[in-house]
Amino acid sequence: MQLTAFEVPIHKVTHIFISHLHGDHYLGLTGLLFSMHLQKRQADLHLFSSPGLNEIILLQLKYSKSVLNYKIIFHPFNPEEKNLIWEDDVVTVETIPLIHKLACAGFLFKEKEKPRRIDKSKLRSDVLLQHIVLLKKGADVVDESGNILYKNIDFTLSPNASLSYAYCSDTAFNPSMVKQISNVDLLYHEATFMEQEIDKAVETKHSTARQAAEIARLSNVKKLVIGHFSARYRDLQPILDEALMVFPNTSLAVEGQTFNLDS
Amino acid sequence: MQLTAFEVPIHKVTHIFISHLHGDHYLGLTGLLFSMHLQKRQADLHLFSSPGLNEIILLQLKYSKSVLNYKIIFHPFNPEEKNLIWEDDVVTVETIPLIHKLACAGFLFKEKEKPRRIDKSKLRSDVLLQHIVLLKKGADVVDESGNILYKNIDFTLSPNASLSYAYCSDTAFNPSMVKQISNVDLLYHEATFMEQEIDKAVETKHSTARQAAEIARLSNVKKLVIGHFSARYRDLQPILDEALMVFPNTSLAVEGQTFNLDS
Repeated sequence: MQLTAFEVPIHKVTHIFISHLHGDHYLGLTGLLFSMHLQKRQADLHLFSSPGLNEIILLQLKYSKSVLNYKIIFHPFNPEEKNLIWEDDVVTVETIPLIHKLACAGFLFKEKEKPRRIDKSKLRSDVLLQHIVLLKKGADVVDESGNILYKNIDFTLSPNASLSYAYCSDTAFNPSMVKQISNVDLLYHEATFMEQEIDKAVETKHSTARQAAEIARLSNVKKLVIGHFSARYRDLQPILDEALMVFPNTSLAVEGQTFNLDS
Repeated sequence: MQLTAFEVPIHKVTHIFISHLHGDHYLGLTGLLFSMHLQKRQADLHLFSSPGLNEIILLQLKYSKSVLNYKIIFHPFNPEEKNLIWEDDVVTVETIPLIHKLACAGFLFKEKEKPRRIDKSKLRSDVLLQHIVLLKKGADVVDESGNILYKNIDFTLSPNASLSYAYCSDTAFNPSMVKQISNVDLLYHEATFMEQEIDKAVETKHSTARQAAEIARLSNVKKLVIGHFSARYRDLQPILDEALMVFPNTSLAVEGQTFNLDS
């Protein structure tokens, strides 16, 4: 419903990552799967989750006698370990073990190194398309005899920076993740409570806004977004203020807002 | 979410009836069960459904390691048979076998006969509370020797009418339900399509607005409410108009609206 409300085309969703099987983190999923089916999806859908989600979804499909017109590829992972769970030409995804009442993992999304950029000011009309492909890969262009036609360094600029994003919800204060997520461009970290409810945070294995900001500071991330606020807080400004005192570049995760990592 | 939006206190919900296990009819249920838990519900909750719902819910509780602080009492029923599935002091509930792609049942809710009403204009100051209780039950009040003190007919009026409500979704045109639901005060009947999509209705085992109205007419119900409209219809007035041509006392099921059966 929220994807539709914010006009995110659901057919563009190809991979879904579920941190743990508490209801507020996955109960909307089966409805989304059926919506994809009704919208005639054909492309594979990759579902990453701690074990059990496949059983739940297959049982729901069984009792509704549904055969989806696309394939779900389940990728169960062990949330207690740091593992590479996905890799393709452009990104890798690792689990980040978190501390919660239920075994729970965050996710670290890292772009791979990008191709070198052609320096358009240097391009001459005799540089062919196949040469440009080679140059982007970082190679020199040589003729049949092995003579260098175009030296890579003369025609290309260094690649754009590879971006990274860490998603960490739900977790108690967990400095053991600092090394893994250090220097990411964006960290989403839960901030269920404020410091005045620290006892509640400890009891329920959640974080306070100050703790989330402390993780961001220790990890030297570029930007922090906090969310997963307890329903007790009607006004979110004090939560943001608490985090800002420790880590200045912090924003609230407001539904529908987008954050541009390379700006 | 809709219960909250329309300010229906969820702790007042004691019995939930699920017609069949297609996603649009039950996927919100587990979230509601967790909300009840978070709101510290202690009262038993009775869940009526075709078999399978208990498995699905128990699996979701297992993988979230949740123990609810109230008891769910599952009442699986055979949707292909007409059965009494609930009875208490004030109501009975029967299944209504429907015709759908998945075995599916509607529900007939009938109030039992109500107590006679005391005719306040006849009340005298010597009529004691225990006498009134007897009179409401329809009995005469006699003294220790067996002499009639108050004749029931002198002090009471006939009971208020017992109300009845039939809920029928999802179903193809199904005149076999007519006898069971005849004369109900309110019939909710699905009207997924209009007559111009009759082929689609037949194929998917749903009804058109005209067919829903035809069931209402054949069953001589007091009022018909139609709903479960296909998302293709932006404007619902033509659907209502189609039903009104067959059964005049028809309303659209608009979320949040209430219908008063005894008015």
